[in-house]
Amino acid sequence: DVGLRDYQTSHRAIQLPGLVNIAAFVPGLVSRDSDDLERVTKASAASGFSMIRVMPVAKDGSISDVKSLKIAQQNGKRGAYCDFNLSITATSDNAHQISHAAGEVGSLFIPFNHLSDNISKVAAVQAHFEAWPTHKPIITDARTTDLASILLLASLHNRRIHVTAVTIKEDIKLIALGKQKGMKVTCDVCIYSLYLSQKDYPGCQFLPTAEDQAALWEHLETIDVFSIGSLPYQLAHFLKQPTGVAVGIADALPLLLTSVADGKLTIEDVKTRLHDNPREIFELHDQVGAYLEAEIDRPYTLKVADAWSPFAGKVMKAAVQRVTFQDQVVCLDGSMLAVPPRGNDMSTHGAAPPTVAMT
Amino acid sequence: DVGLRDYQTSHRAIQLPGLVNIAAFVPGLVSRDSDDLERVTKASAASGFSMIRVMPVAKDGSISDVKSLKIAQQNGKRGAYCDFNLSITATSDNAHQISHAAGEVGSLFIPFNHLSDNISKVAAVQAHFEAWPTHKPIITDARTTDLASILLLASLHNRRIHVTAVTIKEDIKLIALGKQKGMKVTCDVCIYSLYLSQKDYPGCQFLPTAEDQAALWEHLETIDVFSIGSLPYQLAHFLKQPTGVAVGIADALPLLLTSVADGKLTIEDVKTRLHDNPREIFELHDQVGAYLEAEIDRPYTLKVADAWSPFAGKVMKAAVQRVTFQDQVVCLDGSMLAVPPRGNDMSTHGAAPPTVAMT
Ligand SMILES: [Zn+2]
Ligand SMILES: [Zn+2]
Ligand SMILES: [Zn+2]
Ligand SMILES: [Zn+2]
Ligand SMILES: [Zn+2]
Ligand SMILES: [Zn+2]
Ligand SMILES: [Zn+2]
Ligand SMILES: [Zn+2]
Repeated sequence: DVGLRDYQTSHRAIQLPGLVNIAAFVPGLVSRDSDDLERVTKASAASGFSMIRVMPVAKDGSISDVKSLKIAQQNGKRGAYCDFNLSITATSDNAHQISHAAGEVGSLFIPFNHLSDNISKVAAVQAHFEAWPTHKPIITDARTTDLASILLLASLHNRRIHVTAVTIKEDIKLIALGKQKGMKVTCDVCIYSLYLSQKDYPGCQFLPTAEDQAALWEHLETIDVFSIGSLPYQLAHFLKQPTGVAVGIADALPLLLTSVADGKLTIEDVKTRLHDNPREIFELHDQVGAYLEAEIDRPYTLKVADAWSPFAGKVMKAAVQRVTFQDQVVCLDGSMLAVPPRGNDMSTHGAAPPTVAMT
Repeated sequence: DVGLRDYQTSHRAIQLPGLVNIAAFVPGLVSRDSDDLERVTKASAASGFSMIRVMPVAKDGSISDVKSLKIAQQNGKRGAYCDFNLSITATSDNAHQISHAAGEVGSLFIPFNHLSDNISKVAAVQAHFEAWPTHKPIITDARTTDLASILLLASLHNRRIHVTAVTIKEDIKLIALGKQKGMKVTCDVCIYSLYLSQKDYPGCQFLPTAEDQAALWEHLETIDVFSIGSLPYQLAHFLKQPTGVAVGIADALPLLLTSVADGKLTIEDVKTRLHDNPREIFELHDQVGAYLEAEIDRPYTLKVADAWSPFAGKVMKAAVQRVTFQDQVVCLDGSMLAVPPRGNDMSTHGAAPPTVAMT
């Protein structure tokens, strides 16, 4: 890994290893001939992300079988500006099918609230635990009593589980308690959830309340990963703003580094949650020659460029200056250079158990 | 304890220690000047039960605070024909109040499905765990994903928990798995659930399906306790039959002993689940001089007496012949003798931690 080169200098130029967005939302993921995946990788690369893990739930469907996986793989062949991997989503009755696709995807996503009735939820979750290779990651969006439920099932089946896009105070407290008691649980919080709440956007249920948000900050030690997720897209949709595929991506690092400037986070907090932990939890390959340079403490007013942002007009205190991918500069001061798409579909990386890993 | 005296003789006369119904439903429990509690104890004593644990949820309210507890206690002073103890029910916001009543009741009942919204469910359950004395039993009626949820919370808070009136296949399987993994969980199944299903009464959601019922029998080892519960009352109501307070009580032991006659259960299976385990799980006092005699293998057609029964007209192969309470015969061949009510409110028994137990 590339370390922080001149972190201690007065002008606060920093270098970070290529970042990982563990939950990238690609609207047209399973739509035939969609270039959304290509465009998301481009926006990600421009913002310092060298790897995205694509959520299997998209705007018009999800990756839930071999057929939908094929469409997403085909879309991935149009070209990608950073590496990516695909996941598959559990449904009430596709436990057997996912076992066939396991070798071709990075993880299994169990969207608890989309499984049918309560009885089959418990049965379905257990069936998926049985069908999914023990060494491969499982992610869920379960909340409140469903979250407690899936944590128990994971514990009884000796599976580690990652909870994505936590927003609720009770949930982060429950995860903290579970970790304290030795459960194999990790979690991420969407970056927007740290900076926007229902106080800013009344009625916006998918954002934390102000009280939830305070609890998220208080439990920073419990948060393993910062993610982008589908929250920016949902917010744009809720506010009837343009729902471009890049919404939320360029904001991610400037928001976090502005908190570094304000003393609310350290650079290490950011690096741990956008590089170290994502790689460890999701067994991602090391990306040699991927890093970014950013500057902290030079305030500017955010202007909307390619994508709508709720932070337009707000003062930011950090910006990404240069992004390097595969030892080649791909972006300077927010402008993508004319480089070919060199990202790879890394979905099969780590497909075999660690003992016989093919790297 | 009184053992089984002539179990091995040809005519199959057996003796059992006084039975415990761990979930007695008393419709008018918290109605002022109701004699329902007295009448339930009388029907219980006549059927071989020397102790009933009264469910805190009644027809027109529940025991959820000191005031409703006082009404139930007052009703208990009208006289009881067997010993009884009272419980208190958790609500979304009475965690503090129950801590005041803890010394006066036998257990805390957490009716998971009656707690308000999902967020406060997890918070409320945890608040109750914190407020309730660690040595006192906690009972829940949680189902499916809620059951998994409360099992996790109990495990994280190091509390043992009893799941009452299990009907669903997934639930008994989950409890079996939990026990196998060392969780401190016990459960009961209503006796009616072993003999009646939705196949007999289509649309009767509170009964198991035929498949559920088969799973209950398959998991007999996982079932710690047989209970009467509110199921017989619910069934009578559903079928628009008279909902007398005694419904289901007289049927309990004849049904189980008929299964003994049929070779589906052993007498030890019955004794364990109606005496030994109830006493151990709920830390009940030993009732010296309480026992019953029954005869197995003399078939007769069940006639409806005091209470409606779905088994009227069916052939039973066992009957209670004589019930002794406090070394006095109180019932002969189903007819209650003219004895005064000598049962006691044992709610405060075991109120202090075991180390300083007052027996
Ligand atoms: Zn690295
Ligand atoms: Zn500089
Ligand atoms: Zn197959
Ligand atoms: Zn398993
Ligand atoms: Zn005894
Ligand atoms: Zn005889
Ligand atoms: Zn108080
Ligand atoms: Zn606790």
